[in-house]
Amino acid sequence: MEFNYFLPVNIVFGSGKVLETGELTKPYGKKALIVTGRSSAKKSGLYDKVNDSLKAAGLETALFDKVSQNPLTTTAQEGADFAKANGCDVVVAIGGGSIMDCAKAIAFLSKNEGDINDYIYNRLTSDDALPLILIPTTCGTGSEGNGFAVLTNPDNGDKKSLRCNAIVAKVSIVDPECMMTMPKKVLASVTFDALCHNIEAYTSKIAQPLTDAMSIYAIELIANNLVSVYNGTGSKKEWENITMASTIGGMVINTAGVTIAHGMEHPASGLKDIVHGQGLAALTPIVIEASYKGNEEKFAKIAKIFGGESAADCADKIRELLKSIDLECKLSDLGIAAEDISWMAENCMKVSAASIANNPVVFTQEEIAELYRKAL
Amino acid sequence: MEFNYFLPVNIVFGSGKVLETGELTKPYGKKALIVTGRSSAKKSGLYDKVNDSLKAAGLETALFDKVSQNPLTTTAQEGADFAKANGCDVVVAIGGGSIMDCAKAIAFLSKNEGDINDYIYNRLTSDDALPLILIPTTCGTGSEGNGFAVLTNPDNGDKKSLRCNAIVAKVSIVDPECMMTMPKKVLASVTFDALCHNIEAYTSKIAQPLTDAMSIYAIELIANNLVSVYNGTGSKKEWENITMASTIGGMVINTAGVTIAHGMEHPASGLKDIVHGQGLAALTPIVIEASYKGNEEKFAKIAKIFGGESAADCADKIRELLKSIDLECKLSDLGIAAEDISWMAENCMKVSAASIANNPVVFTQEEIAELYRKAL
Repeated sequence: MEFNYFLPVNIVFGSGKVLETGELTKPYGKKALIVTGRSSAKKSGLYDKVNDSLKAAGLETALFDKVSQNPLTTTAQEGADFAKANGCDVVVAIGGGSIMDCAKAIAFLSKNEGDINDYIYNRLTSDDALPLILIPTTCGTGSEGNGFAVLTNPDNGDKKSLRCNAIVAKVSIVDPECMMTMPKKVLASVTFDALCHNIEAYTSKIAQPLTDAMSIYAIELIANNLVSVYNGTGSKKEWENITMASTIGGMVINTAGVTIAHGMEHPASGLKDIVHGQGLAALTPIVIEASYKGNEEKFAKIAKIFGGESAADCADKIRELLKSIDLECKLSDLGIAAEDISWMAENCMKVSAASIANNPVVFTQEEIAELYRKAL
Repeated sequence: MEFNYFLPVNIVFGSGKVLETGELTKPYGKKALIVTGRSSAKKSGLYDKVNDSLKAAGLETALFDKVSQNPLTTTAQEGADFAKANGCDVVVAIGGGSIMDCAKAIAFLSKNEGDINDYIYNRLTSDDALPLILIPTTCGTGSEGNGFAVLTNPDNGDKKSLRCNAIVAKVSIVDPECMMTMPKKVLASVTFDALCHNIEAYTSKIAQPLTDAMSIYAIELIANNLVSVYNGTGSKKEWENITMASTIGGMVINTAGVTIAHGMEHPASGLKDIVHGQGLAALTPIVIEASYKGNEEKFAKIAKIFGGESAADCADKIRELLKSIDLECKLSDLGIAAEDISWMAENCMKVSAASIANNPVVFTQEEIAELYRKAL
């Protein structure tokens, strides 16, 4: 056993904590770039709360509200240019994974010259970025817990992450009340993403004791709390548990990585702008069936948490969960066609090399194409 | 549920990792103060390995080898004066909890003026210290995982910790091979300390999901691996598991604190220079019997891990473990007499206020005296 563990994330968790954004941001800058999507943070009133809190703490603010789902490298560059032009020295993101990831890239590009694709593919490296304050509004991505920012290059469809400690948040304000406005459909897909982060980190070949401890704990939190939260009968405590499991999912993948379901989903959503959690729902059961023999002990533990008896039950137990949150689907439901498979399998080998290597069973390009076909 | 979580510790874990000390230390300084006890690091050859590795990486070194069990505030001051006189800019500790804790205080006092007791009692605060590299040689204290340094004031016997993020190690090199020279008696007492850290953090009133996940995982590691390691039949993997559980114990108490067993042991070992793990062995079963009704769910989980059925079994299961590692003892075996109890109970209220407050049942001074009497 050999590993390194270093994750300097600072999590401030609790209902109403978002009202402390100003005081929590103050040590890091004088002018905040607030990054949001086009409308929901404004509609929900969250943008006003954050902006008011920052101003009350004596910070100036500027708003960049152009981020959309599956954020583009070009949007991040546009945001960084805007941050520089406005003299911002700290970045505050309000949103789901797309927004937090784009904010991370904006913070990074505000301090580093050159093409972000060079940093994504490690042709250039830097460990400098503007300080980041992250306020998640969905409980799925876990981006508030790690140093990853997944971006899509519009020139070639590559969806791949920028990874470095400089984009670990100085403060992540995880306020369960900020999540409770999510539409049911969004809740299902983002929480399934959180479950996948924990399952993939737990079964990853580079898992280690600290990530194992946290991921298995979070899998249990999701198993015990998701269905009632989805059905609208969840207590405050159950919401908090789901929120916590999502942040843990983000933390564990920082160290243990993701495996083949995420590796295969990125080409699909890079190509067709698919909702990430739906793409994972189409792929995960198929991938578990093909992978569980690579680590029967761990897949058995997961299966048991969901009421199964052995590793062989794991895929079906995940299918049952997907049914109960109305998320069962196929890639063809999401707009993927048979003729896309060859590009996706090839692109998977390119953008997801690490995720392929981390999987308990390592698949070839042809085997990956076959898995896509089964999920179609 | 409301909490903060921030622990910027950098753990490098693996057999043989100690040979990388030089390269791991190099980013933090040019001249290392090596802190050890009086002889064992020299006898075992570990001091030479570390010194050679530092020199090979281009660092100068100076040795401070005056630290003994239950380190004194005055020894820390002496070490800091020595570090300053020798122009050291990084501190490398090789040893168990006493040595690591003293090294932390030396690193702190090398950058801060005034009496360390003022910082221990929070009359003064600072978040500055020389960078620290910690190399644990016992698997118990977990000091490599946190920002605590327990010190004893020789003027009044107060045994209390300095706590701040500045004394979290820049790198903790956790090399299971460095532990394997421990005498059997030391192994028993330090590992029982590690178990207590995890049990106390797990049942602490300020426990939170991240510490719960890690502490319950570590309790299971100790339950499944300690006896065979103690009996000399432990595999390399079992040694690694015990080592990991100890580091986790250090990490979780940084956030969730310790409770009453540690709170009551400090006055005892502050008074009589008792081996910490033995003091805990005398107190823990008594304290669990008096505390388990404060959190039956969690004490039941612990009891089940050790083969029991309910929270009420927990104390006896711990007694069985203590028997199997030849550690069962009473305070009177350790030199404590009935007439010491009144000072210890009074001192406990003074030095262990936080640990008393964290316990699932909060005891008065008279109740604490009664617990000491039961443990006598």
